Amino acid sequence: MNRFTVFYRITCYDGENIDEKLRWICLEQGVELPEEVVSQAILDKVAGQVLDVKPLGKNSYQASISWPIENAGADQTQFLNILFGNISLKRGIKVTSVDWENLTDLFQGPMFGIEGIREEFGIKERPMACGVLKPMGLSADEMASQARQFALGGIDMIKDDHGLANQEYAPFQERVSKVAQALQLAMKESGVLTRYFPNITASGSKLIENYELAADLGADGVMVLPDLCGYESMHELAQHKLDLAIIAHPSFSGTFVTDPEHGFTPTFLYGELYRAFGADFTIYPNTGGRFSFTPEECKELNKAARNSNSPFKPVLPMPGGGMKRETLPHWISEYGNDTVFLLGASMLQHPSGLEAAAKEVSEVLLS
Amino acid sequence: MNRFTVFYRITCYDGENIDEKLRWICLEQGVELPEEVVSQAILDKVAGQVLDVKPLGKNSYQASISWPIENAGADQTQFLNILFGNISLKRGIKVTSVDWENLTDLFQGPMFGIEGIREEFGIKERPMACGVLKPMGLSADEMASQARQFALGGIDMIKDDHGLANQEYAPFQERVSKVAQALQLAMKESGVLTRYFPNITASGSKLIENYELAADLGADGVMVLPDLCGYESMHELAQHKLDLAIIAHPSFSGTFVTDPEHGFTPTFLYGELYRAFGADFTIYPNTGGRFSFTPEECKELNKAARNSNSPFKPVLPMPGGGMKRETLPHWISEYGNDTVFLLGASMLQHPSGLEAAAKEVSEVLLS
Repeated sequence: MNRFTVFYRITCYDGENIDEKLRWICLEQGVELPEEVVSQAILDKVAGQVLDVKPLGKNSYQASISWPIENAGADQTQFLNILFGNISLKRGIKVTSVDWENLTDLFQGPMFGIEGIREEFGIKERPMACGVLKPMGLSADEMASQARQFALGGIDMIKDDHGLANQEYAPFQERVSKVAQALQLAMKESGVLTRYFPNITASGSKLIENYELAADLGADGVMVLPDLCGYESMHELAQHKLDLAIIAHPSFSGTFVTDPEHGFTPTFLYGELYRAFGADFTIYPNTGGRFSFTPEECKELNKAARNSNSPFKPVLPMPGGGMKRETLPHWISEYGNDTVFLLGASMLQHPSGLEAAAKEVSEVLLS
Repeated sequence: MNRFTVFYRITCYDGENIDEKLRWICLEQGVELPEEVVSQAILDKVAGQVLDVKPLGKNSYQASISWPIENAGADQTQFLNILFGNISLKRGIKVTSVDWENLTDLFQGPMFGIEGIREEFGIKERPMACGVLKPMGLSADEMASQARQFALGGIDMIKDDHGLANQEYAPFQERVSKVAQALQLAMKESGVLTRYFPNITASGSKLIENYELAADLGADGVMVLPDLCGYESMHELAQHKLDLAIIAHPSFSGTFVTDPEHGFTPTFLYGELYRAFGADFTIYPNTGGRFSFTPEECKELNKAARNSNSPFKPVLPMPGGGMKRETLPHWISEYGNDTVFLLGASMLQHPSGLEAAAKEVSEVLLS
């Protein structure tokens, strides 16, 4: 089988016709030419082929198109170009899913997945929580002190706020080193290791440098922002011999999901695409928080991330963006055990401080 | 001056209030915390500060916010995170411009710019045209033959179709080498060198490899898709000692511009941002073609690309996406001389072939 299938939700605007719009997609993402100037042999070789189209509502359709795998030229970045290159510029095209079955030569998915992370962390079945070092502007010592409090409270893991890079406030190397040391020291007191995932996002070769430096300084995993460092760069890290687990953060990805009629569904982007490109954990803004996904979208996303019918290892959904300590029991019962709850501001709002907040959260997770 | 200014068009949806939405942006892209858990010292150091807000219409406002340069930590990728990281996930925020004046330590802009390209090409004042090697699926020899015809017709430059990568149909190295040789041979016959810009888009370190290989094989410049290879990677190439000019192509960038109330304006993305990150030529879909920018948006974009009040060299706008030979005189009079007209399908549609099409276009440009 030398083709793969992409599923779309298509909206037709004034004057547009579904068959023409689908045909246009088949040409635009392959030959990028009108049919009349291309030979049949080339069309057969590189154009998309509509497999299926069904009306969903007024001017709205679901459809699937098959594409030659060779169009991607064994290159994950070029795959994205085929998936949503020029058509990103024409509204009314929402990618809802990809059948990854024939794409396993191109994509390897996450290194650990849910099972691997549970084994690594020594946590069998229960849900997990992740605290955040924040805000930007604190010194590395202040962040190390936050890390210590999180650890003494027994939280499973912590990550850098996604805006932490290599600012003078808390330079990357100093921050990662001091935080990792603080967690090791805290473990000697508490017996529990809180895992640390610094933000290593940077461009190209610097990303791999940061990854190796983070490993060297004692980080247990890394966080990357694939929409900023490039999806393929994340995929490369997921194959790296140093074996650090990866959290993917959705910063800069918003315009793919905010338009209900164009781009990617949240389920596809955070549940499927980040997974194929190697994320072990996928962060998304939870419903009811500072952003606006519906409860159904969040559940569907969780399901896609964990779906065992994919050729890639299942991934841990990490809802955040306004998750609160007080409502944690509710979200656990809604989302289930294979979830990592990402708690930011809510931890800093605890009247007795971070250690007490982390203790409270850990008790809920163990109960 | 240690702050830079970003200009926005803000839309408020049900229940939203402009002052609250702006305050939220100032916090979200800095401390990412509610005000009450952050010290005043940290707020002063890292949060945004609203400079100005004016109503534009019902629920619509223009506003500007100043940001500490240090939040970007001397890192161009982190700059994008500050510019449109988490706020990308909340609809109703359109970035319209950045004041780059204080950002010249972070960004260098293009290596050549309009003047440098004109000097390099030996073309003084007239508009220019660029042909396209296409479609995907042709062999390297077939593309070299297209290149020869373009060159004998006297076209100024040619580029790879943006979907050409390293497919078996026409592998990168073979394609670049054969096309560059064909152009050199044609020059011996015609006396005119047609410049070749292959697509080198790939992830991270592979991008630099492709760039160096392209230079080695005789390419005159390169094309990159910054939304796929990463903006900062393009910026790195623009500082590369091998000195190849850069065409930026908008593939995969569409969701930033298709929603009129969210993302970036086309002017900002293709006229300002690509320029700051080092593009010498900026491709965009012309009005009236296969995509949907308005004539005003296209003219505003051209103006931003060439604006001499920016600290970066002026850039050549490259309208494409359905540009036709027949209407070239019209677009020249609309867009002016400092434009490179990108002609794809229209060249292949000429009844007497590519050489005749290139001759026809060259005559229009010289007239």
